[in-house]
Order: sequence, then structure tokens, then C-alpha cells
Amino acid sequence: VETGDAGRLEEFLDGLHPADIADLLEQIDESEREAFLRLWAGDSVGEVLSELDEGLREDVISLLDPERLQAAVRDLDTDDVVDLVEDLEDVQKEAILDALEDVDRYAVEQALGYPEDTAGRLMQRDVVTAPEDWTVGQMIDFLRDNEDLPDQFYHVTLVDPRMVPLGNVTLGRMLSARRSVMLRDLTEETFIPIHATESGENVAYAFNQYHLISTPVVDDGGRLVGVITIDDAMIVLSDEHEEDILRLAGVGDASMSDNVMETVRVRLPWLAVNLGTAILASVVISQFENVLASVVALAVLMPIVASMGGNAGTQALTVAVRALATRDLTGSNMLRVVRREALVGLVNGVAFAVVMGVIGWAWFGSAVIGAVLGAAMIINLLVAGLSGILIPVVLERLKLDPALASGTFVTTVTDVVGFFAFLGLATQVLL
Amino acid sequence: VETGDAGRLEEFLDGLHPADIADLLEQIDESEREAFLRLWAGDSVGEVLSELDEGLREDVISLLDPERLQAAVRDLDTDDVVDLVEDLEDVQKEAILDALEDVDRYAVEQALGYPEDTAGRLMQRDVVTAPEDWTVGQMIDFLRDNEDLPDQFYHVTLVDPRMVPLGNVTLGRMLSARRSVMLRDLTEETFIPIHATESGENVAYAFNQYHLISTPVVDDGGRLVGVITIDDAMIVLSDEHEEDILRLAGVGDASMSDNVMETVRVRLPWLAVNLGTAILASVVISQFENVLASVVALAVLMPIVASMGGNAGTQALTVAVRALATRDLTGSNMLRVVRREALVGLVNGVAFAVVMGVIGWAWFGSAVIGAVLGAAMIINLLVAGLSGILIPVVLERLKLDPALASGTFVTTVTDVVGFFAFLGLATQVLL
Repeated sequence: VETGDAGRLEEFLDGLHPADIADLLEQIDESEREAFLRLWAGDSVGEVLSELDEGLREDVISLLDPERLQAAVRDLDTDDVVDLVEDLEDVQKEAILDALEDVDRYAVEQALGYPEDTAGRLMQRDVVTAPEDWTVGQMIDFLRDNEDLPDQFYHVTLVDPRMVPLGNVTLGRMLSARRSVMLRDLTEETFIPIHATESGENVAYAFNQYHLISTPVVDDGGRLVGVITIDDAMIVLSDEHEEDILRLAGVGDASMSDNVMETVRVRLPWLAVNLGTAILASVVISQFENVLASVVALAVLMPIVASMGGNAGTQALTVAVRALATRDLTGSNMLRVVRREALVGLVNGVAFAVVMGVIGWAWFGSAVIGAVLGAAMIINLLVAGLSGILIPVVLERLKLDPALASGTFVTTVTDVVGFFAFLGLATQVLL
Repeated sequence: VETGDAGRLEEFLDGLHPADIADLLEQIDESEREAFLRLWAGDSVGEVLSELDEGLREDVISLLDPERLQAAVRDLDTDDVVDLVEDLEDVQKEAILDALEDVDRYAVEQALGYPEDTAGRLMQRDVVTAPEDWTVGQMIDFLRDNEDLPDQFYHVTLVDPRMVPLGNVTLGRMLSARRSVMLRDLTEETFIPIHATESGENVAYAFNQYHLISTPVVDDGGRLVGVITIDDAMIVLSDEHEEDILRLAGVGDASMSDNVMETVRVRLPWLAVNLGTAILASVVISQFENVLASVVALAVLMPIVASMGGNAGTQALTVAVRALATRDLTGSNMLRVVRREALVGLVNGVAFAVVMGVIGWAWFGSAVIGAVLGAAMIINLLVAGLSGILIPVVLERLKLDPALASGTFVTTVTDVVGFFAFLGLATQVLL
């Protein structure tokens, strides 16, 4: 396609959804991207920009002709503009804001006034509202006369004269009612207005838990300031999951289009932390140089104890982090879960102690080494289960992200305890 | 609350959403649950059941009075009934199906005829359709006269006489148009019917990528058989994420309400696999007993090489698994990504080689040990980056889940390579 044939490119892209064009832009490399943007004259630039990975947006925006960019931005809903500009540098941000009509610019700036990652940033300003004493007929007439409706809306929100939201009427119910029916008699049972400063995480939780499609956003005075729809909540949910899974692996943020030094910058700090904890484990080992020098079998077997502990700890940890994120692990079932993890660790520990005891014995012909190995295994898997649940819980209590640092803490604990238990016991028994 | 006071319980639960009651049931323990179900006479049993964790449903259903259960099930949409019965044993399943009206029973059985985890299982049978030549006015009159509409619907789907879907009209657009407007002039640009045998994963992808709210499901003949709405897609998306994160940690499936032996059964197999690979690493170490016996510092330092490799590999792996899941990693950018991972591994390797070389030298007063440590670090981080990307890619090509087994493979590779490189080099240089 990149033969410079703009006509054929246009033809090909015409059939594509903006999200697919954005994906395409993410997958080609930098020089191809430049050529692509020079050739392409399609009119879905705005939508493509808002679908694009954040890491690439700045690059693509700086490659675009300013006039084209401004035209593109004017077509977007205000929540998409907010999403687009919030991570841009000031110069680019100003250029985009200047392109907006006054009323939209005001809406975008208001939204940017709310802290990052809150309902205020996610919401769309255009809300379809109705006074509480309207009938279905009045509402339909109003909608038919109104030119300036949002692209997508699923509810009419009833408000009192002070703009406090009172209830949602789904369009489906409205359409199936007679014109004379009062809107207030059609409101949904589940109605959960969200405060503008509520975190994105809580917004996603509410949508997921209560199967919301759209819900009003209110300010300190309880007055309606916007609406959040499920597509925004779905994006937040995906981002949260992504963050959890990447943080558990010690990768801050990642995209396929990152370059090498960018990627190193993201991953190196975490490896440095891991180096620190690995050295700590080595210091523990170095305390037992005597026994290691006289029984070299210990050096062969000790990684098994550490590795099993690390794995069992990661299992318990991952389940705990997920349960905290989905709010399945709370104060009321905490004790039961901790007891369960301890018992699971113990049962697994005994099972593998028997297996490893036999293997250690058979391999090195020493029942004592087998026994030490088995005992260390039980201790380490018990500790793994406990630290796997307790470390994320404590981090959460300290208002830290349990996904972020738990992995390193847990494997540090299991490495240190594993080496200490195995080599310590061996010193007692063998020297 | 469990003092046996049914009145107070009822009062408390009345204000709760069924999803919250389900959460409550998940958090209390078994005996409390029994007492709870005896006391509670609320009428949202059906909804609570469909919100409940799958692992618990069978228990709760068997605790319920059969008549109450049947009444509860009759209130549910057919897709919720499908979701409810698909994992039940045959006796319970029959009891529930018998409770349904014939037409619903037929719909549920049809849906159960599609393979698990496909669009056919997720879809709702009740679809609001209209002939392609209807006007807005005709449609509104039809909706007003129709008693039996789905609880929630967002589109009217236009169909031809053979029931082939032609387009979706959002209720919002319909409401804001004059009665004389043709429905076919209001259809949405993005219209993506989904085949009934499409996988749940692809359904979630389509909803996420194209911001769908609801979309028709078609059979082999292209005829409309149902509709999937975004709340179903959101649940699939959550489940997929959950599965990925748990599988990466070697936990098959997990819920907070599992008991100890259940949890052991899920986690033990994975630990057994890990034991196998840990033993493999130990076998590698045992090949170098000579050098270990003469230079005990090697036993102290070798876990550092393995641990750094394991971490770097997990980082690359997690990014790759995510990118495969979100389809950001494809044939067209594969080579570039592999090259990037190799370079990242090399850069990180050199950085930590310098640090560790100095530490090894300072700690054990031997420049040679420092050099060996540094060289092994470079090799292992390079291998970690490559195996972190290539192993999930190969698993994916083999149609296996890249999240499932990658972690163990990658750490096996980094352990084996780490110990082999470090101890092998040491043997060459020090003996």
C-alpha cells in the first residue's frame, strides 16, 4: 500500500472502522507512519486519533497539518476531546482547545479541572434531561425539535428545577409507553448517580456490578454536570486489568510501539529492585558457606526450595490481588481466607515434602538430606501462602496498589525463608 | 443480622441490589448461608442466582425450596437462564427447564445447543425487529401495542422477509426523528452482525473495538437468531482478563469461596510442573559440582543470575501475552517486536553486568568472578527477552493459550541458561 498511491490507500481505508485504522497506524513503523499520514486525506482523523494508543498520539498529532487537526477535533464529542488532550503538552493542547467552539471549549476545560482518572474526566457534558413533570409525548416532541443531541444516548434523566437528577428513563420504556404517561412513572429501579470526583476504578465497579448503561454525574451540590456511558466504563475496566497484569510482572506501562530505550526505561527500575532482593537472598546463602563447602548437594537442591516457594507465593498473591480488585476479599471474610491460604500452603507443603524427601534421598543417597529438604519445603510453602495473602492486603491497607510491589516482596520472602530454612536446618543436622 | 430475625433481615436486604446480595452470600460461610436462605423470603432470588459466583450456584440452588426456585427462574431473561443452567448437573438443570414456559424452554434449549463460550450461548433470544419499509411512526405504534418487550433494548434491528438483519437503528435517533421518516434512513454506520458460533473472545473484541452497544446474532443462513448486548460482552471481557492473569500465575480458576481441598486441587498440578522444571535446573547445577565445591562463592551468587533472568523473562512474556490478547502483536510487526525484545535484553544485560561485575568483585575480591557473573548476566537477559516473546508466540501458533504455560517455560529456560552460563563459564575460567 505504501507505494505512494493515495487513491488506492483511500479506497482501502474507506471500508475500515477508525479503530482499525488506528491499529494499523500502531503496527507500522515510524517512517511508514509519516508517509501514511502524508498520503491519507480521509475525514475520520478525529476518531482515529481518539482510538490511538496514548504513546503514539503526540507523534501523530505533530505530523498532522494544524488546520486538518482543528477540523478533526471539532467533530468529536467533548469527552473524546478531554481524553485526547489530557496527556498532551501545553502547546499542542492549546492548539486543539483553540479550535473548539466556545461552549465546547468551556466544557473541556471544566472537565480538565477535575483530577485525572475521575468521573469528571470520563463524563460527557451533553445530557438529555427532562423536567420531572413531563409526559412521554412532551419529551418526544422536545427530542424531535432539538438539533443538538448527543451521538449516542440511552436514557432521559429527570431533573428537578435545581438540576438535581431524580431518575433515569430508558428510551425503550419511553418508546413503548403512551404519549400521556408521565416520565416519572417509567423511571428505572437501579439509579446510581456518581460524584464527579469519584475514581475511575469505582465508576467501572459500579457499571459492572449494577449493569449500568449510562449514569448521571453530579457535583458537590448534587446537581447534574454530565453523564458517563458504558463504553467509557468498559475502557476504564480494560485499563485497570491491563495495569494489574503488567504491574504484577513489574512492567509499568507498555505498548507494542515503544522503542528500545523507552522499554528499557520502563523495565530496568523493576529489575534493579529485583537485583536488590536477589542480593539479599545471596547474603542469606553466604551465611552458610561452611555447610555448602562441605555438602555440595545442598547447592544443587537449594534452588528447588526457593522456586517452589516463589511459585506457591505467586499463586496465592495473584488470587489475592484479583480478589481485592473485584472486592471479593474484604474485612468480613479476611480471616477465613488467610486461614485457607495457610492450610493450602501446609497441604501442598506436606505433599511436596514427601515427594522431594524421596527424590533427595534417592539422588544423593542420604535420608538426612531428604528429610531436611522436605522440612524446608513445608516451612516455605506455608510462609508462601501466608505472605501471598498478607502482603497485598497490607499494601492495600496502606493505600498502595497491591499489584505494584507485591510480587517482589513475596518472592523475596520465599527466597530468604527458603534458603534460610533449608541451609539452616542442614547446618544443624549435617555439620 | 443472623440472629434469626427475618423481619430485620428483609428490611436490610430490601435496599440492596441483587448483585450486592450475591456478594454477601459469597462472603459468609456455609452454615451462615444456610441460615440466611431459610430466613430470606425476598423476591429477587432469580437475579441473585444469576449474579452469584458459578462455584456457589449449585450449593445455593440445592438449598432452595424447589417451588421458589421455579418461580424465580420464570422471571429471568432467557440468556440469564442459559448462563444459570449451563454448569448445573442434569437433575437441577431439568428442574429449572421444567419451570419455564414452553417458548422460553425452547429458546434456552436452542442456546444450549451451541458450543460453550460462543455467541449463541451469550445471546438473548428476544429481539426487537422491524420490516425494512417501516416508518418511525409505525415502529412506535408497534412498540406501544406490544406487551412482551425485552427488559432492556437499545436498537431496533431492520430485517428482510427472510429475517436477515439489514441494519440497526438506535432508539435515540428514532426518538428524535419525525414519524414519517423511514427507519432505513436512520441506520447506524457501524453494523457488525455476529455468527452464533463465534467465540466469546471474538465477541468481546468486536464490542470493545467498535464500541458496540448491541449487535444481532445470525445463523448459518445469515438469519437473525438473537442479540448480544454490551453487558454480556463486558462480562466476557472481565472473565478473559481474569483467566489471563490467573493462568499466568499458574492458578486455573479461583474464587474466594473455594474450600481448602478445592484450592489445593487447582494449584497443586501447576506446582508439580514447576517442581519438574526446578529439578531440571538442579540437574544442570549438579553437572558443575566440582567447581561449586572448590569455589563456594559461586553457590552464593548463582541464584542472582537465575532470578534476574526469570524476572526479565516474565516482563517480556507478560507484555507479549497482553499484546496477543489485544491483537496488538501480529504477523506484520512480529519481527520488529522480537528485535526490540532482544535489544532491550541486551541493554539491560549490559547495565546489570557492570553493576554485578563490580559487586561480585568487591564482595569476593576476585575480578574473575565479577567478570563471569557479568557475562552470564548478559547472556541470560538476552535469552530471557527472546524466550519471553517467542514462547507465547509459538504457543499461540500451536493454538494453545499463550497465558497458560508460558510462565513455566520461560523461567525454566532462564533458570537452565542462567545456571549453565554462569557455572559453565566459571568452570572454564576458574578450574
